[in-house]
Amino acid sequence: MKYVNNGVCAPKGFLANGIHSGIRKNKTKPDLALIYSETICSAASVHTCNKVVGAPNTVTKKHLSDGIAQAVICNSGNANTCNIDGIEKAEAMCDLAANALKIDTNNVIVASTGVIGQSLSIEPIASKINELASGLSPDGSKAASQAIMTTDTFNKEYAVEFMLGSAVCRIGAIAKGSGMIHPNMATMLSFATTDVMITSSMLDKALRAVVDDTFNMVSVDGDTSTNDMLAIMANGEACNTIIDCDNEDYKVFVTALKEVLTSISKDLARDGEGATKLVTCNVIGAKDKNIARTVAKSVITSNLLKCALFAADANWGRILCAIGYADCSFDISKVDVELASAFGKVTVCRAGSGVGFDDDYAHNILSENEVFINVNLNSGNYEATAWGCDLSYDYVKINADYRT
Amino acid sequence: MKYVNNGVCAPKGFLANGIHSGIRKNKTKPDLALIYSETICSAASVHTCNKVVGAPNTVTKKHLSDGIAQAVICNSGNANTCNIDGIEKAEAMCDLAANALKIDTNNVIVASTGVIGQSLSIEPIASKINELASGLSPDGSKAASQAIMTTDTFNKEYAVEFMLGSAVCRIGAIAKGSGMIHPNMATMLSFATTDVMITSSMLDKALRAVVDDTFNMVSVDGDTSTNDMLAIMANGEACNTIIDCDNEDYKVFVTALKEVLTSISKDLARDGEGATKLVTCNVIGAKDKNIARTVAKSVITSNLLKCALFAADANWGRILCAIGYADCSFDISKVDVELASAFGKVTVCRAGSGVGFDDDYAHNILSENEVFINVNLNSGNYEATAWGCDLSYDYVKINADYRT
Repeated sequence: MKYVNNGVCAPKGFLANGIHSGIRKNKTKPDLALIYSETICSAASVHTCNKVVGAPNTVTKKHLSDGIAQAVICNSGNANTCNIDGIEKAEAMCDLAANALKIDTNNVIVASTGVIGQSLSIEPIASKINELASGLSPDGSKAASQAIMTTDTFNKEYAVEFMLGSAVCRIGAIAKGSGMIHPNMATMLSFATTDVMITSSMLDKALRAVVDDTFNMVSVDGDTSTNDMLAIMANGEACNTIIDCDNEDYKVFVTALKEVLTSISKDLARDGEGATKLVTCNVIGAKDKNIARTVAKSVITSNLLKCALFAADANWGRILCAIGYADCSFDISKVDVELASAFGKVTVCRAGSGVGFDDDYAHNILSENEVFINVNLNSGNYEATAWGCDLSYDYVKINADYRT
Repeated sequence: MKYVNNGVCAPKGFLANGIHSGIRKNKTKPDLALIYSETICSAASVHTCNKVVGAPNTVTKKHLSDGIAQAVICNSGNANTCNIDGIEKAEAMCDLAANALKIDTNNVIVASTGVIGQSLSIEPIASKINELASGLSPDGSKAASQAIMTTDTFNKEYAVEFMLGSAVCRIGAIAKGSGMIHPNMATMLSFATTDVMITSSMLDKALRAVVDDTFNMVSVDGDTSTNDMLAIMANGEACNTIIDCDNEDYKVFVTALKEVLTSISKDLARDGEGATKLVTCNVIGAKDKNIARTVAKSVITSNLLKCALFAADANWGRILCAIGYADCSFDISKVDVELASAFGKVTVCRAGSGVGFDDDYAHNILSENEVFINVNLNSGNYEATAWGCDLSYDYVKINADYRT
């Protein structure tokens, strides 16, 4: 397996584009993205577990009930959520894309991100849909990834190449963060493509298998969005033997999908609103997987710890505190904690109690832009990794100014 | 029932004091408090549910196993938690207080707050305990409440007076916040006193009955501390008929206790680290009490909403989002939301969808230093109230600089 360029256009037969349509007032910010497969795809998606569900999510779930799709249309600047006319507008977006692409409306995936509770104006989309469709290109992944950004500071796209038998296969993905990020069942918005031939039921299974270890292990601010969506389309153009059961090829596919979505997940955390560093919490020695996951997420979610990490302050008591209030059962008196980064590493806690360490050295470790908190529960063989970021003045600034 | 002065010294027979002992380097910050009853008290306490439990909590629980106490000693500047010698040091604090007061060590309640994981130096306490004890006074509540402060910007003390039969009774309390505040089973640190005559088992029952609607409904940052403790002592000097069962006098006592602890809880939220305003979320129309509580706490805990409130931005979609991810079951399409303050009130959401409102007017409502988010689930007759605060630059500043 190796990383390749071109994100969602890396797999054969996928085109993409992104433009400014006018949903956003700021003309320098693109706001409408389109991803298109030249042939019909197997498709699957996972969505937010928030009881407030974005209208686009509802429409997408309906359109994917047959496991088939051919395009994704997505706008930024307006979430199209909590509006009386939300479903109608989301359906209209699908109709516009379907007409422009000459495909079935039911084969369009629709997503929106932005402010909640303001009616979405369909006119900008209607006026620009043909320009958007005619500009579809095999080099369009970057433009699409830029058009779905909100407060993201960089676009997020990855692709990998791997073999299934003698077939060269690819998986690509784009995503946007970067606030209201605490996915549960899915992330903010991410769209993946692959030229692997796979049934929609196995694609769905693969997506659900991977999401628990990737997007569901990311938190920026503990807020689970109303519009979280991760969708994948597989057009089969790699001409591998179709994956229709849990065989070796399926395992290879899952491994490749996990690789891409892990890279995307880390970018979501790294680009958390106001973040100055990526924080990775590795938990090992857990009695079961759920304990490992719960502890890892509790650590990266702590506001107090996030503030300390912003200052590169080795205030490890806050790590123990966050481990301690994780909602699961283990023996806190066995817990070891280590801080690490490219600079070095240091043990700060052994068997639940502090051990002496050089504060200046620990400060240097935490001053890197990627830091690791390694927790050993010393109670079993399960492990999990979660990704988060620090909490800075800029998180407050970004979110206090969001609508202004 | 009426409010009276003198906090924990308002009830008959209680004395208090607070001084600078030297646990803190900054000599202008008092760091050691003592509360003393001239006679033996019934006593009860509730503690953190964090698996990392402060050594003082462990010792206090042991000392209160017989339901009897006569004094509280509490330091700030060091939490005495996650240290190998923690229990030994907490016991030593009790011994010092007991010797100075000529009471039984087992009748001393001990508490600590401050940095986790640094060994507590007992010398400052030993050298100043006699000065602390000899300075005990019926006017000492304020000094005691100041000595337990950490990042608090004001001291917190309340007292009420009420009648049980012909007996004039009082309950007083002091507390400290103001970060790592997301109590579960108890608050950060709060000590209450009363001259009511009540058995320790009824006192314990009253404390647990009240804490769910007061301290457990406060959140500043979602971090449940390791040292949370709420303790109460009742010396019986009001000479009322002893409360030994769930009778009318018990109900009056619970009402008075709830009044005092509600005032303390609101102060904890109002003085949340970096907070510029007190945010009260009232939830009505819930199918059961747990739903009402869960929704109210979810709203005041949302980082995104807290940032919007800092900017007085009526970004009500974030309120709906936080209601939507509350971990309980209800029909989101019935939910109404109103914003209110001394300036006025405005409905922003009806039946789960946005309604038009004047953004400038809403901004003025949210610019007050006490604002209300009123949620009607329209699904039943239960209600709950939670208290929180906004999230400002200063929260980050305070917690990034905490140890420096």
